[in-house]
Amino acid sequence: MAEKNHNYAVIMAGGVGSRFWPTSRTAFPKQFQDLTGEGKSLLQQTVDRLAGIIPDDQVYVLTNDRYKAIVREQLPSLSASQIICEPVMRNTAPCILYAALKIHQLDSQGTMLVLPSDHFIDSISSYRKDVELALDRASKEEELLTFGIPPVSPHTGYGYLAVKSQEEKITEIQQFTEKPDEQKAKEFLASGKYFWNSGMFVWSCSTLLEAFAAHQPAMLSLFRRGDEVLGKAKEEAFLAQHYPKAANVSIDYAILEKAKNIAMVKASFQWNDLGTWSSLHDQLTSKTTENAAIKAHLITEEAEGNMVYTAKEKLVVLKGLDNYIVVEEEDVLLIYPKGEDQSIKALRNKSKDEFGEEMI
Amino acid sequence: MAEKNHNYAVIMAGGVGSRFWPTSRTAFPKQFQDLTGEGKSLLQQTVDRLAGIIPDDQVYVLTNDRYKAIVREQLPSLSASQIICEPVMRNTAPCILYAALKIHQLDSQGTMLVLPSDHFIDSISSYRKDVELALDRASKEEELLTFGIPPVSPHTGYGYLAVKSQEEKITEIQQFTEKPDEQKAKEFLASGKYFWNSGMFVWSCSTLLEAFAAHQPAMLSLFRRGDEVLGKAKEEAFLAQHYPKAANVSIDYAILEKAKNIAMVKASFQWNDLGTWSSLHDQLTSKTTENAAIKAHLITEEAEGNMVYTAKEKLVVLKGLDNYIVVEEEDVLLIYPKGEDQSIKALRNKSKDEFGEEMI
Repeated sequence: MAEKNHNYAVIMAGGVGSRFWPTSRTAFPKQFQDLTGEGKSLLQQTVDRLAGIIPDDQVYVLTNDRYKAIVREQLPSLSASQIICEPVMRNTAPCILYAALKIHQLDSQGTMLVLPSDHFIDSISSYRKDVELALDRASKEEELLTFGIPPVSPHTGYGYLAVKSQEEKITEIQQFTEKPDEQKAKEFLASGKYFWNSGMFVWSCSTLLEAFAAHQPAMLSLFRRGDEVLGKAKEEAFLAQHYPKAANVSIDYAILEKAKNIAMVKASFQWNDLGTWSSLHDQLTSKTTENAAIKAHLITEEAEGNMVYTAKEKLVVLKGLDNYIVVEEEDVLLIYPKGEDQSIKALRNKSKDEFGEEMI
Repeated sequence: MAEKNHNYAVIMAGGVGSRFWPTSRTAFPKQFQDLTGEGKSLLQQTVDRLAGIIPDDQVYVLTNDRYKAIVREQLPSLSASQIICEPVMRNTAPCILYAALKIHQLDSQGTMLVLPSDHFIDSISSYRKDVELALDRASKEEELLTFGIPPVSPHTGYGYLAVKSQEEKITEIQQFTEKPDEQKAKEFLASGKYFWNSGMFVWSCSTLLEAFAAHQPAMLSLFRRGDEVLGKAKEEAFLAQHYPKAANVSIDYAILEKAKNIAMVKASFQWNDLGTWSSLHDQLTSKTTENAAIKAHLITEEAEGNMVYTAKEKLVVLKGLDNYIVVEEEDVLLIYPKGEDQSIKALRNKSKDEFGEEMI
């Protein structure tokens, strides 16, 4: 008999992706969309990348009740018990803790890979090697590992990790910095000692639970009360009653910035958090003057640097338009300067106020 | 018994409207589209305007075989015999002559109102008064009447009629000028003696047939050979055989510019030939800086003078875009500078070359 595989994946798929409006909607957020035009949603791509590393029945998806049906449809090989639904939306700490408790109960030697469901990863083979390395390390060392991405621009929308050595593959983290201003981001980039915080983590369940015991004892004891109902009929009622009481904090803030046993795995793959339409453009093109198209077929005249997305295949003719986002959905068409795509979130709210809930 | 009504309408609906691409397609040209967002096609609006002036069963539509089914669907009150199909596309002279022969055979006192099917008319009551006046005049005088529109801009895309007097409602025409250059158009506008040639005509069938006898005897005798089969089973075969032999000329060139008994009715209504997207914009807005929207619901920021058309109701968000045409169809999205919409015809051909026949 083959040796038991102790690797588990926990994929977070509960966000609404409001800056990818109008494609990402509350009813069908970006992780469930084929944003990259590859015929699979970002969530499906995230699961596919784990094939052979993590057994299908050891992949968990964290989402919330409203998306349960979408997750089941997109990932039919997952059983109902592998989809963990928050009864209310909380930041990452509570849902990751809850998943760790569930996995730990099933497998006390379990090691967790925690992944967002809406990121872009290139160089899949490098990614898989890094993931395997980290899982192996976490199974042996009591460390909380996070993937750090070598920065390619002074991005002000990311968190940064300062490390002691940029030479080693796995290295100590000296400091966390949330979204820096541009000046600081440039310094970080120049120093060579800062990495983007990817929000992808690896640790053993037991190491994570010890960290919660040390740094978030209240949250841990809140959920410990459910030990007897985990995986049983009463679990849902327990969650409905107690989950809303959990603090709305991120795993970074709740644990990583407090723990001492943290380390960074220097990523050897290309990564993009697909936070905005322009980040998708960056990912799809090698030059900023190129036009990027998803599903759209372009005819352009004097048009550069545009990000064009259509919900279905469509001919798009552009003339005299530079650096715009053009997004076409069944009920919304957006034509917006690419440099201002941070304000799409506000625009989304405006369209809700004027045209109703179904717009967002 | 009421007196017999001798008024007939002949509506020309055979064009392809290529400058209104991608909304106007060979398979479904602009006259069959609800371009103005009123819930009726331009053709249907053209027929509706005649209610009470011309009996339903005296309205004829000239089109070609490929559009017969669309016309029947859009105008269910017309019988099959009221839809006259050219077997091949020809300019206006042959089809108008052919319609005159048919009507004259049914009613030797018949008076014809000849109308394009794709124009915009405002101030409907003024229009109806002008039409009734002209029909009455044509029933009494052996005149070929054309409607002249008081120009409101030095438009270089229209033909101009020079008249002797701008005071009289019906007046002698001194000269026809095809599309003038800008300098000339400005002089025409300033002079007050020039009117836009609307392409809408009124005459009795007998007067028109005399004019053809005098100026286009070959075309007349070609069609006269069919006198015995008009309205009979063999008519279609006759048309298929002989219609293609007719000269491909306009009624203006074939008759009006040659005849002496021509006169202009000075229109008291607002008119627009809806030749291009920007002419639709002109028609829909009172200021050039306004945005015009058909079916689209707009949210705009720093966006002026745009013409936005969507095939279905849709939210359209625009920022930082001035004087553009934004047209969205099921399979095409066009974003194009409004001032260059004369080149849309060329663009249409380009999209055919790259993406196939169904694009045009």
